Amino acid sequence: MKLCSFRAAGRDRYGIVVDHGIVDATRHISASSLRQAFSDFRALEAITNREADFALEAVEFLPVIPDAGKIFSVLLNYESLRLEQGRPKLQYPHLLTRFPDTQIGHGGALQKPRASAEFDYEGELAVVIGRSGRDISAAEATDYIAGYTCCNDATPRDWMRHSRHFTLAKSFPKTGAFGPWLVTRDAMPDLGDCRLTTLLNGQVMQNAVLGDFTYPISELISYISRATPLSEGDIICTGTPAGCGYKRSPPCFLKAEDTVSVSITGIGTLTNSVVDEN
Amino acid sequence: MKLCSFRAAGRDRYGIVVDHGIVDATRHISASSLRQAFSDFRALEAITNREADFALEAVEFLPVIPDAGKIFSVLLNYESLRLEQGRPKLQYPHLLTRFPDTQIGHGGALQKPRASAEFDYEGELAVVIGRSGRDISAAEATDYIAGYTCCNDATPRDWMRHSRHFTLAKSFPKTGAFGPWLVTRDAMPDLGDCRLTTLLNGQVMQNAVLGDFTYPISELISYISRATPLSEGDIICTGTPAGCGYKRSPPCFLKAEDTVSVSITGIGTLTNSVVDEN
Repeated sequence: MKLCSFRAAGRDRYGIVVDHGIVDATRHISASSLRQAFSDFRALEAITNREADFALEAVEFLPVIPDAGKIFSVLLNYESLRLEQGRPKLQYPHLLTRFPDTQIGHGGALQKPRASAEFDYEGELAVVIGRSGRDISAAEATDYIAGYTCCNDATPRDWMRHSRHFTLAKSFPKTGAFGPWLVTRDAMPDLGDCRLTTLLNGQVMQNAVLGDFTYPISELISYISRATPLSEGDIICTGTPAGCGYKRSPPCFLKAEDTVSVSITGIGTLTNSVVDEN
Repeated sequence: MKLCSFRAAGRDRYGIVVDHGIVDATRHISASSLRQAFSDFRALEAITNREADFALEAVEFLPVIPDAGKIFSVLLNYESLRLEQGRPKLQYPHLLTRFPDTQIGHGGALQKPRASAEFDYEGELAVVIGRSGRDISAAEATDYIAGYTCCNDATPRDWMRHSRHFTLAKSFPKTGAFGPWLVTRDAMPDLGDCRLTTLLNGQVMQNAVLGDFTYPISELISYISRATPLSEGDIICTGTPAGCGYKRSPPCFLKAEDTVSVSITGIGTLTNSVVDEN
């Protein structure tokens, strides 16, 4: 299944993406959001054969999980990137968090912060958690995944130099794009066969194979859940590959009227424009 | 006013602390939580002269803001500590975040994580935001403060060595104690005259004057709000002074059956026991 959150006919909804349209699940299921609906996946499956209620072109996509609880962002998780930067492999992943109010959906505008001159894209695969757990073993971690979506984990690079903890760098409004939809785990091809491509104004900036992770997704879930409970709708952004703007010569940062898209095999393409804040 | 969140007679409530008791504001105000009630402070003021509904001893204190949105934790914010550690003064504060589900109230038990052998106290002043804002100037920042409470921003030190970003170190359940109550800004003495004292099993471990901040509260609010909107009930833990367990010789970490208390002039004393996780 492809599941999405969207706004149409004046209200926020969630539904199932079918051929060129969306079945509006909010008409059939009492759960108030896609995240809430994860607790009854069968109810979603039961309506997949209905006629679409809205054309894809007729809706405003919301972030896949507008009411996400915990959003984690992994730094430096591609072996190609790690080797390119000559960094040692560490025992534990580098993690940051992102506030849920930083999210936008497919087709929305990434907001270049007023306070930054170095706003940069980060194309990523995002993992959405489907059930709650703590101390999840790596062997069982896959069972906790609802599905996958594309993410642009955009970052004001200058704020990463403020402090070695990077905390506020992922906190700016409208800097985290998620979408266009979530592809459920069962419908996703083998991740090792998937490719992530980031385009800036049509030009390929990032191009990587997903199997190149330093810390596999199962290990990320296991590690994070040793510290904090994971719940339905929590999100793990799995890190960005080589090719970000700040590492280019000369550096290339996002500016108003740019268009960035992140495509992942088996999911689709997340496209966002860029606007200045205010 | 002294405002608190608590549980009594089978449900979560909030109210006003008066002599030896609490006026149950939930009986008079429709807001569903203390955070929600910040938008109508006058309604709280209007009931301060009522008779107490509950004795202090008869309630279970909840964290002051159980439904807090964003919780920030400042590292290394006491000049005495910075100088003791021989660290340079940096332009920007070191910040971490804490998930709201890590919170406990006065009288609750701090939970020593299974996954940590180095669980440590951090006595702190916590600032609670009273109204929403973005790009708040330092000159106006005080207007955005609802009040102050005591905090034990406890931390598994070993998890701070996992990565330089420290992200998961503040994410463990039941490691952040807030209380016993919030003292509104108008009722608080000048912070520079206030003293913070942390006791472990009755022995003084931390003892500092609040005026010793490297980054004054107004600057912290201003800086954070340049990145992310602050809202009613958001919390800034202002950093811990010298004397934490991990810097002692030999190191002294928290263990089950310990009792830790954090006292601040003008607020009161937050006391918590320690239990092992599971």
